[in-house]
Amino acid sequence: MLKIVETLISKLIDEVDYPYATELFQKLSGGKRLRARLILTIAPEASTAPLLGAIVELIHAASLLHDDVIDEAQLRRGVPSVNATQGSKTAIMLGDILYSKAFSSLTAFDPVISRAVAESVTRLSVGEMMDVAMAESFNTDRDLYLKMLYLKTATLIEACAYSAAVLAGKDAQAHLTYGKNLGLAFQIVDDILDITADEATLGKPSLNDFSEGKVTLPYIDLYERLNEQEKQRLIASHGKVLDNEEKRWIRSKMDEFKIIESSYTHARALCDEAIEAIGEDVALRAIIESVIQRSH
Amino acid sequence: MLKIVETLISKLIDEVDYPYATELFQKLSGGKRLRARLILTIAPEASTAPLLGAIVELIHAASLLHDDVIDEAQLRRGVPSVNATQGSKTAIMLGDILYSKAFSSLTAFDPVISRAVAESVTRLSVGEMMDVAMAESFNTDRDLYLKMLYLKTATLIEACAYSAAVLAGKDAQAHLTYGKNLGLAFQIVDDILDITADEATLGKPSLNDFSEGKVTLPYIDLYERLNEQEKQRLIASHGKVLDNEEKRWIRSKMDEFKIIESSYTHARALCDEAIEAIGEDVALRAIIESVIQRSH
Repeated sequence: MLKIVETLISKLIDEVDYPYATELFQKLSGGKRLRARLILTIAPEASTAPLLGAIVELIHAASLLHDDVIDEAQLRRGVPSVNATQGSKTAIMLGDILYSKAFSSLTAFDPVISRAVAESVTRLSVGEMMDVAMAESFNTDRDLYLKMLYLKTATLIEACAYSAAVLAGKDAQAHLTYGKNLGLAFQIVDDILDITADEATLGKPSLNDFSEGKVTLPYIDLYERLNEQEKQRLIASHGKVLDNEEKRWIRSKMDEFKIIESSYTHARALCDEAIEAIGEDVALRAIIESVIQRSH
Repeated sequence: MLKIVETLISKLIDEVDYPYATELFQKLSGGKRLRARLILTIAPEASTAPLLGAIVELIHAASLLHDDVIDEAQLRRGVPSVNATQGSKTAIMLGDILYSKAFSSLTAFDPVISRAVAESVTRLSVGEMMDVAMAESFNTDRDLYLKMLYLKTATLIEACAYSAAVLAGKDAQAHLTYGKNLGLAFQIVDDILDITADEATLGKPSLNDFSEGKVTLPYIDLYERLNEQEKQRLIASHGKVLDNEEKRWIRSKMDEFKIIESSYTHARALCDEAIEAIGEDVALRAIIESVIQRSH
């Protein structure tokens, strides 16, 4: 089924009728196709599920293109980013092409679905804008961080689960909760891996988020536990390239206060709530468990 | 009627529910609202015409935000651009918010309309990407230039005219031709004014397009008329900040070969074709005449 999605993605790109865009798109790594897999899992019988999967993968690719411009990222999934090789102008426009192509194709769906997906893109853009604004200082507001996380990462996954449930005639609200929690848990695990995984696995420097100014959940939790002097030391490291001593210090403090365990507990709670919402769905349980347990 | 459009634009932005985005959007100059005026003129009786007008103005604003990032423009309609004051990251995301909000709202329309508008955004993004690629060298291909112009500037206006005709139950194909030609004529006049208007009127240096690497229609036409030595001189000035002597030389050569007149003739022919397509529509004639005759 995922193969049909890949074929449809290629077809949609070909329809744009601009060989340079096709060429650049083909060089992108497709990633795990989590969003398309989710749709196919929820609505395996729906004839339009593969097209919806292809559309949301275009949207996801567009958001990553713009995200990489914003983060000035040199790598994406281990390959050089479009902004790194072709410049940010091309990356912005390729993103706009993918977004608008996705929206054109969405018009074939029930407005309930096209509206849910389009609204999620507004939310993820708001989340991205909040992310940029929040990286300018050391944010210690946990709720604000979680709101940004929801907007930036969870809303599209939420819209996928919701729309697929609509397609399949399943409980849309329950699947919305599942998708939202899946997205949040996914991002929290991502934040954890930025701290715990080695550089070869990450394909980028470890503790990169913090160097980029992103005060993720573990850092907010850590900050709350530190004494005044240590708090100042952590703030002083924010948004800078960290040397090995500073990385060691941050990690040792996280160990001391069991911060990573506490972030995992948070992710686990989201996962349990998601499973409770959808009940006895073995395949959806497996997806969220694999997200929680992934190591990269 | 245009007042209702402005109210709806504000309402759509408020619905995004992110005060920072609202604040930035309010600082943008709304411009002439050509696209909304066009829709209201074609479909004055349609109850949803003001909403469609508001949506396409959001799309137009989004495209300008991204356009300014790409051109590294410091000014837009005489006020500092968002990328100049808030940075390009914020400008990219604000553009994405406006695009996606527009697409969400489009789901309330007949898919024929929402698809036409969304497809025009794909085309304008392709046009913008071509524009970036073409600015890297001195392009002498007239047809390629006109194709890029169509994609970048005319497709959204074309989609507005087409969609409004669908709303009003008028001849959609004739209005599509009108919109396409209006967009092309508008951009050709824009290219001319970059050469002929004074800097105070433009709000930017004159001959700015050429300095930015954009070989517009008058330059392509001029190049064809120059001798070999002059051709080399023109190429050598491409993509550079021009001193007054070079500006004088370019303008004198354009005078010598009546290049501006010839570009106006081209715009005039597009205008005549547009008028022929829509027939006895006084209001639409007035719009395209005002575009041709505008001085800024």
